[in-house]
Amino acid sequence: MSAAATAPMVRLRLEEVDDLTFRALIASGVSPVNARSVTASVVAAETEGVHSHGLARLPTYCAHAKVGKIDGAAAPALSRPRPGLVLVDARDGFAHPAIDLGLPELIAAAREQGIAALAVTNSYNCGVVGYHVERIAQAELVALGFVNAPASIAPVGGTRAVFGTNPVAFAVPRVAETPLVLDQSSSVVAKSEIMVHQQRGAPIPLGWALDREGQPTEDAKAALEGGTMVPAGGHKGAGLALMVELMAAWLTGANLSIDASSFADNSGGSPRTGQFFIAIDPGPVAGPEAGARLGRLCEAIAGQEGARLPGQRRAAARLRTAGEGVMIPKPLHERLTAIAIATPA
Amino acid sequence: MSAAATAPMVRLRLEEVDDLTFRALIASGVSPVNARSVTASVVAAETEGVHSHGLARLPTYCAHAKVGKIDGAAAPALSRPRPGLVLVDARDGFAHPAIDLGLPELIAAAREQGIAALAVTNSYNCGVVGYHVERIAQAELVALGFVNAPASIAPVGGTRAVFGTNPVAFAVPRVAETPLVLDQSSSVVAKSEIMVHQQRGAPIPLGWALDREGQPTEDAKAALEGGTMVPAGGHKGAGLALMVELMAAWLTGANLSIDASSFADNSGGSPRTGQFFIAIDPGPVAGPEAGARLGRLCEAIAGQEGARLPGQRRAAARLRTAGEGVMIPKPLHERLTAIAIATPA
Repeated sequence: MSAAATAPMVRLRLEEVDDLTFRALIASGVSPVNARSVTASVVAAETEGVHSHGLARLPTYCAHAKVGKIDGAAAPALSRPRPGLVLVDARDGFAHPAIDLGLPELIAAAREQGIAALAVTNSYNCGVVGYHVERIAQAELVALGFVNAPASIAPVGGTRAVFGTNPVAFAVPRVAETPLVLDQSSSVVAKSEIMVHQQRGAPIPLGWALDREGQPTEDAKAALEGGTMVPAGGHKGAGLALMVELMAAWLTGANLSIDASSFADNSGGSPRTGQFFIAIDPGPVAGPEAGARLGRLCEAIAGQEGARLPGQRRAAARLRTAGEGVMIPKPLHERLTAIAIATPA
Repeated sequence: MSAAATAPMVRLRLEEVDDLTFRALIASGVSPVNARSVTASVVAAETEGVHSHGLARLPTYCAHAKVGKIDGAAAPALSRPRPGLVLVDARDGFAHPAIDLGLPELIAAAREQGIAALAVTNSYNCGVVGYHVERIAQAELVALGFVNAPASIAPVGGTRAVFGTNPVAFAVPRVAETPLVLDQSSSVVAKSEIMVHQQRGAPIPLGWALDREGQPTEDAKAALEGGTMVPAGGHKGAGLALMVELMAAWLTGANLSIDASSFADNSGGSPRTGQFFIAIDPGPVAGPEAGARLGRLCEAIAGQEGARLPGQRRAAARLRTAGEGVMIPKPLHERLTAIAIATPA
């Protein structure tokens, strides 16, 4: 990333990412079981090169735990109101322990019923949605994930933000390969991409965001402070954001995006956003040739000069970071180290 | 529509649309029960102003039934391999009778299990996907629909079509109102929009399609003969098309879009595409304030000057067509009348 050249960088092995993350969370008052759950997701994000959802976001996680915007010691509560429905109340804690609690029950339910859903409510930013659906697909199930976020996209024709960047994710198990994972926000880019540019002091490309007057901007700060995100594909992106809003926020009883406090600053109490996952057993419906047919589809894409399957960049990052570790801005490393050595709250 | 000015038009009452459609299908060798099912969807499309999926498509339905590309007398077969999974084999017949057979079982399963899915395989073009998810939402269930179609979208960076225009649809029940329905293709516009322009002899806007050399085109014929459709939002639209492909085609055991014969011409045998629907009971998870929260979300959109909720145009069309009927091109009316008075095959 060109912005990297503007700040000195520090190289960390993945074990160091793990250690630093866990200690920073513990020092911020997060319980060990919850810190373990969040740490695994931060390490996974850095492993796959998704820095925006990895260490770049960790200072915010720690600050939110410290000021009580997240209850770092929350114990999520699971219920199963119907054979195919699992409900987890994150109780204003991190999303990761709530999802980790629900996934085994979701997977068991999907195997029994053929299809099941996990609704997570009163939750928080869950990091990379693909991380969660990939784990469902590792259990040989097809997975869909819907996640809402504080409002940052305006409906087409309007000026006030109603939807979050509201990502949707999809994963399908493959024979003798990692699952095929698709993970995309409803906006042209994820909001966290703009935050990374702001952290690095770099401008954003035109077409990513609008300022508070609804005008295109290259200024990350203008985009984040009162501006809105541009939906991908115009009204189709806004339509997808609405669908995700209804699945992730409305259907889980979580806060609508218009009612959720910011994921970025310390004010407003718990965001209480939601996540909704669907798991489907392909066995009874996809037929005996499912593996070969999936291979044929993947080849029709990856076999074209210039085209690629989703996940190829992340797969390359996994290979690279396993050997070389990751590079993070020196100021971020110093900040995280300072958090990690502080006395727990 | 400006293209309407180029051809003389005929006004039909909705009862006349129903009668003409049913007779044209019967005269093409379609069984009465199947013809009734298809007719209901054609009338619904015309009622809501979606001419491209209404009478404009009927000559093709009739031709396909006549040449055997569709088995007009097919009896779809239902099974329920898991408590939450309903599978219907359309047996190379129309999609509509297959979906009509599966919907009551899907709705019953979703009420029992909390969530259920209907996989339809060996099927055909199902018309407006929103029509099907709306009927699920009328049973007080949240509905998702995924539909594949013959390949017409190339992966980003590639040149050969891999995905159909692959629409996704969503519906959610509302208190004392028709369901909120979203229905959008993965391409900038539905392929049927280009077919309507071709029928009317009108050019298409730049940005809708590419010709066979991958160049932008305003020529509907160049788009339909060897060209490809442009995905909405670039790689995000192509990503959505991949997700829909996996849900609608791969997961149902239907033909992949690359293997499906055209919906437009008479060659290649049955397209054997697929449809996948998910129904969810919001009661156990959306909470007691679900109705009020949905109203609040809708108001946040519709209350903004210049913004609108999906479905407002269709709702206006319902009011208009109930009183005024619909206008169709005179050559199309003459063609359908000729089909309807022919001797059954």
